[in-house]
Amino acid sequence: MQEHKGRAAFAAVDWGTSSFRLWLMTEKGDVLSERRSDEGMAKASAGCTFGKILKSHLSALGAGEDLPVIICGMAGARQGWTEAGYVTVPALPEAILKGAVRVPGEARDIRILPGLANRNPAHPDVMRGEETQLLGALGALGDGTHLACMPGTHSKWVRMAGHEVLEFSTYMTGELFDLLSKQSLLAHSLLGSEGMDMEAFRIAVSKAVAEPGRATNLLFAIRAGQLLEGAGADVSRARLSGTLIGLEIAGASGDALNAFSGTISLIVSGRLGDLYAEALTALSRPFITIAADDAVREGLARAARSLWFQSKE
Amino acid sequence: MQEHKGRAAFAAVDWGTSSFRLWLMTEKGDVLSERRSDEGMAKASAGCTFGKILKSHLSALGAGEDLPVIICGMAGARQGWTEAGYVTVPALPEAILKGAVRVPGEARDIRILPGLANRNPAHPDVMRGEETQLLGALGALGDGTHLACMPGTHSKWVRMAGHEVLEFSTYMTGELFDLLSKQSLLAHSLLGSEGMDMEAFRIAVSKAVAEPGRATNLLFAIRAGQLLEGAGADVSRARLSGTLIGLEIAGASGDALNAFSGTISLIVSGRLGDLYAEALTALSRPFITIAADDAVREGLARAARSLWFQSKE
Repeated sequence: MQEHKGRAAFAAVDWGTSSFRLWLMTEKGDVLSERRSDEGMAKASAGCTFGKILKSHLSALGAGEDLPVIICGMAGARQGWTEAGYVTVPALPEAILKGAVRVPGEARDIRILPGLANRNPAHPDVMRGEETQLLGALGALGDGTHLACMPGTHSKWVRMAGHEVLEFSTYMTGELFDLLSKQSLLAHSLLGSEGMDMEAFRIAVSKAVAEPGRATNLLFAIRAGQLLEGAGADVSRARLSGTLIGLEIAGASGDALNAFSGTISLIVSGRLGDLYAEALTALSRPFITIAADDAVREGLARAARSLWFQSKE
Repeated sequence: MQEHKGRAAFAAVDWGTSSFRLWLMTEKGDVLSERRSDEGMAKASAGCTFGKILKSHLSALGAGEDLPVIICGMAGARQGWTEAGYVTVPALPEAILKGAVRVPGEARDIRILPGLANRNPAHPDVMRGEETQLLGALGALGDGTHLACMPGTHSKWVRMAGHEVLEFSTYMTGELFDLLSKQSLLAHSLLGSEGMDMEAFRIAVSKAVAEPGRATNLLFAIRAGQLLEGAGADVSRARLSGTLIGLEIAGASGDALNAFSGTISLIVSGRLGDLYAEALTALSRPFITIAADDAVREGLARAARSLWFQSKE
């Protein structure tokens, strides 16, 4: 396999709070091999073992001692491996690439990409990792204005002009779903099924968009619906997810007077992508989907090219 | 003390999820003595010991074996002592009083008041305990339309015409504050101070009311404000509380076209009352405050009079 594509030119690492992914890649950006684990920042910083974790995965893939490594994500946070700061928006891709910080004290050339910061005092915000997905997604975005939606524990909505990031906002949707589904009064209503009633999901999305101020009332109504109407766990789970995603879309895409009316760029992978696609469809909002897994790898490859293989950029 | 006010005619009990309060009262409604404990439904139902808990408190106050007891709250839930159902709104006070259920198998006359249910399929909702506060607060409410706000773990907003409850909505404000302040990403931002910066609180309230759709973005901005601006724990805590209370007020009091413009009846006790008063003042919303502790006791006394001392009603 490796023979056909060429030899590893660098390793690309997406190092999040709870997950670690590494790819060995050719100069052209082809993937030779991959490693995934749960050794995210939370585990790595507990033992200050970022270096050890990285080395073990590189060794397992037989990577050379001098293979350079490009990293994005929480490894660059203050409480991570080596702080890689934030680039202030508005920001062009070049500023992100230039902000890469070399990990000191390592013989190997290891660089960590910076995050982005929105320093508008009215809407302070930060991202770390998603900026690299954006770098990788740029190929799919033309000129003009874009609104990118990046669902997750902390969903990001990013407004761009061409390839420039103008501003962005984070919504705590995924974390709220997790807390509410496991630890709130609503946990009882979700027991017994992991499924979702998609009709109930669509209705919940529409209700939250129509009346975002009632969001926490719509949440309580999940419990009331179980008590008074005998709503099942699949309906309750769909209502919880739909209410939170609808609230996010209501805030992120603006009100009727102030809405982004173009095609939303949905950068996402897996099951979460299906839910956001369903929500945007229910709201008749046009969108394209860009695979987040591919985008982050392409963003890392682009950074590697600009750092080490300038001629190819 | 007891000599001056007369003898106990009944015991009144507010039996919530996490708290138990009992008062011995005269036929006139004067308080002779009081007991408080944390033996709420959660503790009582675990051991099916509602009867034992009640008896121990009555004995401690020297109450007679045949003293009747009126109870409101979660003791009447399905998972409580004896289920006392829900009266469907719109409902007059008389319907609540008539819905009291006698606890079977007890020599003593023990009655539990029912809750209220909003069976509108678009906004199903339930309350249990607050209906008794409303009964007690009626004396402070005249004819005409009222909007009562009852802050708490699950805040209730109740629309009334005179003494009739028309409809109500529950907001999960208190539970969300608890979850987010202790178990979310925001917990870090709140460490080091239990205080609140009231200017930050007022700004957070106003922002959430102005842009309720951005609620979970405003929550994430608490973390970003700490990272980028060095916001302290007292500012972060105030922003969390203000955002959630503002979101509740945005939904409950309607938008600009559909708002209740009269004087809000704020039924609340303690620190939470100060926060809601601050929020409503910041929004220039007129309100009166009715003490929730007194209201629930007065509501129970009213129920006791209608059950056992009809001539005095």
